[in-house]
Amino acid sequence: MTDELLSKEGFEPFFPGSRKVYVQGSSADIRVPFREVTLEKADGSGKTAGSGRLVLYDTSGPWTDPEVNTELDRGLPPLRDRWQEVPLREGESTCTPSEQPSGESARGCRRKGRTGASTQRALARQGIITPEMEFVAIRESLGKTSGWYASACRGDGRDASGARSGYTPEMVRREVAEGRAIIPANRKHPELEPMIIGKSFRVKINANIGHSSERSSPEEECRKMLWAILWGADTVMDLSTGEGISRTRNAILRNSPVPIGTVPIYEALKKAGDRPEELSWEIYRDTLLEQAEQGVDYFTIHAGLRREFIPFAARRLAGIVSRGGSILARWCLAHRQENFLFTHFREICEILADYDISFSLGDGLRPGCLADANDRAQMAELTTLGELTRIAWEQDCQVMIEGPGHVPMNLIRENMEEENRVCAEAPFYTLGPLVTDVAAGYDHVASAIGGAMIAWYGCSMLCYVTPKEHLGLPDRDDVKAGVLVHKLAAHAADLAKGIPGSRDWDDAMSYARRSIEWNNQFRLSIDPPTAMKFQQESSRQKEECDRRYCSMCGPNYCAMRLSEEIRQKMEEGNL
Amino acid sequence: MTDELLSKEGFEPFFPGSRKVYVQGSSADIRVPFREVTLEKADGSGKTAGSGRLVLYDTSGPWTDPEVNTELDRGLPPLRDRWQEVPLREGESTCTPSEQPSGESARGCRRKGRTGASTQRALARQGIITPEMEFVAIRESLGKTSGWYASACRGDGRDASGARSGYTPEMVRREVAEGRAIIPANRKHPELEPMIIGKSFRVKINANIGHSSERSSPEEECRKMLWAILWGADTVMDLSTGEGISRTRNAILRNSPVPIGTVPIYEALKKAGDRPEELSWEIYRDTLLEQAEQGVDYFTIHAGLRREFIPFAARRLAGIVSRGGSILARWCLAHRQENFLFTHFREICEILADYDISFSLGDGLRPGCLADANDRAQMAELTTLGELTRIAWEQDCQVMIEGPGHVPMNLIRENMEEENRVCAEAPFYTLGPLVTDVAAGYDHVASAIGGAMIAWYGCSMLCYVTPKEHLGLPDRDDVKAGVLVHKLAAHAADLAKGIPGSRDWDDAMSYARRSIEWNNQFRLSIDPPTAMKFQQESSRQKEECDRRYCSMCGPNYCAMRLSEEIRQKMEEGNL
Repeated sequence: MTDELLSKEGFEPFFPGSRKVYVQGSSADIRVPFREVTLEKADGSGKTAGSGRLVLYDTSGPWTDPEVNTELDRGLPPLRDRWQEVPLREGESTCTPSEQPSGESARGCRRKGRTGASTQRALARQGIITPEMEFVAIRESLGKTSGWYASACRGDGRDASGARSGYTPEMVRREVAEGRAIIPANRKHPELEPMIIGKSFRVKINANIGHSSERSSPEEECRKMLWAILWGADTVMDLSTGEGISRTRNAILRNSPVPIGTVPIYEALKKAGDRPEELSWEIYRDTLLEQAEQGVDYFTIHAGLRREFIPFAARRLAGIVSRGGSILARWCLAHRQENFLFTHFREICEILADYDISFSLGDGLRPGCLADANDRAQMAELTTLGELTRIAWEQDCQVMIEGPGHVPMNLIRENMEEENRVCAEAPFYTLGPLVTDVAAGYDHVASAIGGAMIAWYGCSMLCYVTPKEHLGLPDRDDVKAGVLVHKLAAHAADLAKGIPGSRDWDDAMSYARRSIEWNNQFRLSIDPPTAMKFQQESSRQKEECDRRYCSMCGPNYCAMRLSEEIRQKMEEGNL
Repeated sequence: MTDELLSKEGFEPFFPGSRKVYVQGSSADIRVPFREVTLEKADGSGKTAGSGRLVLYDTSGPWTDPEVNTELDRGLPPLRDRWQEVPLREGESTCTPSEQPSGESARGCRRKGRTGASTQRALARQGIITPEMEFVAIRESLGKTSGWYASACRGDGRDASGARSGYTPEMVRREVAEGRAIIPANRKHPELEPMIIGKSFRVKINANIGHSSERSSPEEECRKMLWAILWGADTVMDLSTGEGISRTRNAILRNSPVPIGTVPIYEALKKAGDRPEELSWEIYRDTLLEQAEQGVDYFTIHAGLRREFIPFAARRLAGIVSRGGSILARWCLAHRQENFLFTHFREICEILADYDISFSLGDGLRPGCLADANDRAQMAELTTLGELTRIAWEQDCQVMIEGPGHVPMNLIRENMEEENRVCAEAPFYTLGPLVTDVAAGYDHVASAIGGAMIAWYGCSMLCYVTPKEHLGLPDRDDVKAGVLVHKLAAHAADLAKGIPGSRDWDDAMSYARRSIEWNNQFRLSIDPPTAMKFQQESSRQKEECDRRYCSMCGPNYCAMRLSEEIRQKMEEGNL
């Protein structure tokens, strides 16, 4: 099926009626991609939702643009290379005057800041709006930048009525400067279309790919990545542990328009002959540098798992369920030393700052079952992650915090509140949480329940869980199911949080339902091919698709049709 | 597949390692069924969770008991017929002395109460514990009745430490007397294994079956019902609107161990030639009486949709999406009269009290999209449902209240709180709510998210939504998926509410995971065949199933195995 993606038919095979559109920013290079859904007029009334088109956030990159000549072997065009030349603009600086770089203007090209770093955070703190910030402002606003954009791009993103209608580059800059959001974008990954992770923005989702202990071809993993971003993955983590992972990772990076994350300890362990006790800071550091040079955008680093916390975890029902966590715990026990990621944390910060790689501070002690949720081991590690966040911020690194795991519904809010408190509102990135332990085969749903809740409470990104969780590695169907149910959870959270523009999609669907306009319903579904298949299976004759009643109730019991008659009566004054 | 159910292999084909067990109550007739899962010892330590067996709530009835000779043509044995003879026991009455029936003892056989009714509510209010109440107390307590049961069956269900460890018949009686719970059990449905719906008890789920506008064979619908209860449906609603629905309904009732609900307006409309304006109170009343006589346990009755509320709904984005609601609205408009279910409500109560059929007061104006959630139409109808609840209670009818629908996460709690307030904590029974409108094909997940949340907030029963919602009628796979994800949501709510014994299941699974004991993991899954299939697809060689590592991470990166080594080190004092 991804073959169709590669065959340059654009969105059509997956999202009929959709096409790629771009909204241009302040320079010709800043072209922000969207998926535009064209809606058919439902009836003679011309009352199709809004303008007859709906613009949706799009993660699929040039792969769904028939105008761009994409091939796996060649890789994507290096969009951001040219941005090194784009003149930078000044925002409303949050620095005090004495903190301003003296002498030269704040405008300029990616100058290094006070800390020596020129990360998005460093630049944001100097009051500089980067092309990446402008790009994500347009992207988060769903391109609703005409009219208000030009005048409001340094304003507060509110419309004439005072309601928030979008995001300005200045708002993005401020959130990044204050550490409440990150733009993961290694400068060695120029193919990236920038995106932002933070509680004020749309909730994001991550899809994991990668093979364990098996050979995997670079092409196969690239296809998985494309499949995941087609359905809506905002970032992709390559968790490969097998042979040839460096080559695979490079192929993924060269073809990925979304940020790529990794867990470098896996490759380091491979180099240590699969023996945790043979690991060393030097092996790990070299691995970081190699992956950094390839362009990885964020690293999961389990630096918060301190040696003294291990006994707390050993007493648990499920113990340590994080792969990275258990590897490091083994190392600590073998050497009777503190975790080398903790002791070398400032050196790690230097490497990450150099490339502007974001931290995803790993939760090696996340609970692996309800019985262990919010326990001493988890909370001790979280507190350490808060301390490390501040150290990373001092070096102008961008940071997000990883979270659980398995948590009963009544303990989810506490997770978010504690993270906000001890990590100063750094973006939270959770795996689920799964709200029960018994859902094997349906853990994507257990995760979507917990994920929707924690995202509503303020979590910025959800790591997907597939139906194969706890059982095996996901295949293509599992990747799609995992992405879609978490996208659904993330969208539900956007709606609950009142993210600007998020309900337009739902309202367009509701209008299509009310009008019994099947084609528009399919076009607006999160998975049009599945929606069409389900509807057609139910309509015994294909012509029923066009008939004016709901296929669930049949013609005589169709609430939508009866309801339309009532509406007409009212309009005629007969109510 | 249900053929296997009918072939009397018990649970084995679906739940390997499970068997039917019964716990006996105060008389030989009160035998409460459970599914007992036998767990294999994981290792030499003998540390398999608890006693090596786990008892789970079971909704599948005699169909999974190889000892009972079940055949669709014959129907189930009439379990409750004999209960008419069981001497009734006195509880701790909540009536004031003056309310006590004068002269005779409160003990006795199903005497009619003060109101002339002998419903579970009437008897409960007289301080009488019925066999049904005792049955559900044992059932809700998962049979943990040895030891404390005999002495505590009139106590408060707490163990020596003061923690609630189960439910006593007296607690059940009190909840029913106060209207916070119902035991839907038409006395003409003696095949029923009683169950309870109320916020203090395990969250229940309902599965809808039935064909619309098509011939459906009684056998086909019976098989759907069996399929739904096998996977965990606590009640089943027959929503048929086609030909021969009376015969189909009778077949379902004679074979169903769970309460059966219907929406009588559908059959009434059929009798009125499918023309809403031809409906009349007389047609409806006769339909009620026929269905009552067959043994239907609860009726959805849209008596709260008052004529004056229709204009509120007509102004909505999605209008009226309830089939029953739109039929009645049409009738009101055609006749320019008040809804006849409202004007004849006391007569309806008399019929329902006679048979002890429970009300499911329908929400004909439930929101059909996020834009309409918690609006004036919905809240006006809910207030009327509260008034009707009090009228029904005066006649000693049992009542639950139907709820939405489509509601964004941030407005869910308000739904539950308003229902509690205006309906005096009568059990709430919701359809979802769906937390987004765009999830066509995945609406079972959108519903599980909202359902888990509202159940945690206090909703007593969730109506399932299948992947085909908004698209067509569910097939067998959809019924199973709908039941399982809502069962998962209900269980997640039980865990969050701290329902006694609910976490034993999760802890047993977590122990099996920690021990990498695959067979126990499969036996404890909500869907063992699917879990087994997924795991085996991932294990390239079948023997891997037995190996001691997680099939996701492979042998060298298995967190569970590394974690076990850490645990051992700690026990050896090497930590």
